Amino acid sequence: MSAAEVKVSKAFILQNPPLAEIDLTLGSETSTFKLVEQDIPELKEGQFLVKTAYLSNDPAQRTWIQRDADAARGYIPPVRQGDIMNAIAIGKVVDSKSSNYSVGDLVLGLFRWREHSVQDEKPAAGLPVTKINAIPGIHPSIFLGAFGTTGLTAFFGLTDILKLEKGQSIVISGAAGAVGSIAVQFAKHVIGASKVVAISGTEEKVQWLKKLGADVSLNYKHPEFKKQLDDATEGFVDAYFDNVGGEILDHMLTRVKQHGRIAACGAISVYNSLDSTHLPNYAQIITNRLILQGFIVIDYLPRYAEGIAALSSALQAGKLDVKDGETLVQAKFEDIPKTWGILFEGGNTGKLVTQIASLD
Amino acid sequence: MSAAEVKVSKAFILQNPPLAEIDLTLGSETSTFKLVEQDIPELKEGQFLVKTAYLSNDPAQRTWIQRDADAARGYIPPVRQGDIMNAIAIGKVVDSKSSNYSVGDLVLGLFRWREHSVQDEKPAAGLPVTKINAIPGIHPSIFLGAFGTTGLTAFFGLTDILKLEKGQSIVISGAAGAVGSIAVQFAKHVIGASKVVAISGTEEKVQWLKKLGADVSLNYKHPEFKKQLDDATEGFVDAYFDNVGGEILDHMLTRVKQHGRIAACGAISVYNSLDSTHLPNYAQIITNRLILQGFIVIDYLPRYAEGIAALSSALQAGKLDVKDGETLVQAKFEDIPKTWGILFEGGNTGKLVTQIASLD
Repeated sequence: MSAAEVKVSKAFILQNPPLAEIDLTLGSETSTFKLVEQDIPELKEGQFLVKTAYLSNDPAQRTWIQRDADAARGYIPPVRQGDIMNAIAIGKVVDSKSSNYSVGDLVLGLFRWREHSVQDEKPAAGLPVTKINAIPGIHPSIFLGAFGTTGLTAFFGLTDILKLEKGQSIVISGAAGAVGSIAVQFAKHVIGASKVVAISGTEEKVQWLKKLGADVSLNYKHPEFKKQLDDATEGFVDAYFDNVGGEILDHMLTRVKQHGRIAACGAISVYNSLDSTHLPNYAQIITNRLILQGFIVIDYLPRYAEGIAALSSALQAGKLDVKDGETLVQAKFEDIPKTWGILFEGGNTGKLVTQIASLD
Repeated sequence: MSAAEVKVSKAFILQNPPLAEIDLTLGSETSTFKLVEQDIPELKEGQFLVKTAYLSNDPAQRTWIQRDADAARGYIPPVRQGDIMNAIAIGKVVDSKSSNYSVGDLVLGLFRWREHSVQDEKPAAGLPVTKINAIPGIHPSIFLGAFGTTGLTAFFGLTDILKLEKGQSIVISGAAGAVGSIAVQFAKHVIGASKVVAISGTEEKVQWLKKLGADVSLNYKHPEFKKQLDDATEGFVDAYFDNVGGEILDHMLTRVKQHGRIAACGAISVYNSLDSTHLPNYAQIITNRLILQGFIVIDYLPRYAEGIAALSSALQAGKLDVKDGETLVQAKFEDIPKTWGILFEGGNTGKLVTQIASLD
């Protein structure tokens, strides 16, 4: 399709901002999202048209759509009822009235859940669209994963929040997820952790994480899981990289060393629930002088180059397996919400990416 | 009574280590504590006999007696079934075979809930008994409060954990308690906080905290409390000094600034409950990049002199009112548990001290 033919774009708007449960079916009154078609405005000077190819699926997107989300308490503007759902994506410039962006450029930005979008070379708010250079032999979707926000989240979580050092021990939950699978490898093979305990939710993930370098790989659905975790953390661990929150976080409050650190990176176990963050072991934070620190990778924007350099050099040294670290789903546009829902069912291994168009 | 006559000592042993509720009545099967009489052994070389006069009542004592408390997860050895209840106390040396401690010395240590105790000048475990020098015009019990662990907890919590600076804003819960009432005054009058919001549980405490310097003083039992707290923290606050945990902590997760700090100092609201630490706002820790840090004042032992110097100089400059900062209860030995229970009913203003004997 040539750019001149592009007059309308499919898009998903937020129909029902959720309080707790999400409904990813389409066409009902309770559906969280609604499929619409929108006219694409003519390009003005300084604007360019992006065709979206790959959508990043991130648990954090769930927090962006929370009903009555307080804009002052988020790190990007919340998605309100009637807004197009937001998402980080990779696309290609297919038309341009900008001198900075040319037709054919590979670009990364918050392109939202829509086929085409008009972007400004100097946006009024937020960051400019990023041009990316393809790496030979590596799929461009790596810029949504290992070399994108998820890889950088793993890197800064381990090095800056947890201050993990060679010879220290760590537990990583959501370990087969996008962030977790990079964190496991980086902690073991680059930092040189004495022990990496990985927690995931299927036997297949458990095996994969062993292959990636986890010293102990546990399935939280195993009936003896807590006992296994206690055994794996005998003598306690220096750090806990938390991607799940809830019950596993609570149990880890009893397994982190005195003066140990917890990186609060995600809480996927409780995003779709009103009331499951329940921490009977809360007092352990006091008696064992734990530091629980929340973080969001965009705060590290000024240090992204440092992170990408560390990840690239790990990749080149063969210490980072990124090819298996992605679940790429080719989906019809209509199936974007359903595909995003895989995140909350634990259906992905590594980064979950939705491909809705080709970059050709 | 001369030392030679002291042959037996009353003591309270832990009869039923609690899981949740405590039972401070005496003489029943479910009583948490049991009154006993114990023989006092003859002094050996290097030992001395202490008569206990003032008992420190601390919410943290509740964590020391938790059933099945893990010794590796505490900061002092747990009190087991049959052990004498532990407590920080002030007493007087009434007999001595030590060259370091003389009859008449005023001493501070973990003398437990008993009338008399034999102490070693070089204990096999733990810290040696501290000799203290009375301050003219000030009751010696100040060394259990403003110049003891509670004042130092306020000092290190504000300066080291919260890193509170002149011009910043802070909320302090349990503000009429021993730690809280020092924290309010030190934050306002010494550090120079722009706004100190104090939270307590009675109208009398609310008024007292205003007198101590709180800019806003709130009663958490007021039906409009959360709304009042939101108004008092408009634009959000830099720091939260948490002495209570539970629901107020949860609400404060929504009221601390992005990248703000929370000092997890106490959780009195949940100590006697199995399941009330419920944090529906947990994800705010992530999205707002909060740091929640637990601490215990004994970690600052090497820096106590610094803390006492800062508190003394505040006292001399008239910036610290310590005379009203104490609830001194003269009690019969039998009433020690009941008096300790006042802590959990919010019955004390400032430090709660039980006097069981005179220092004369």
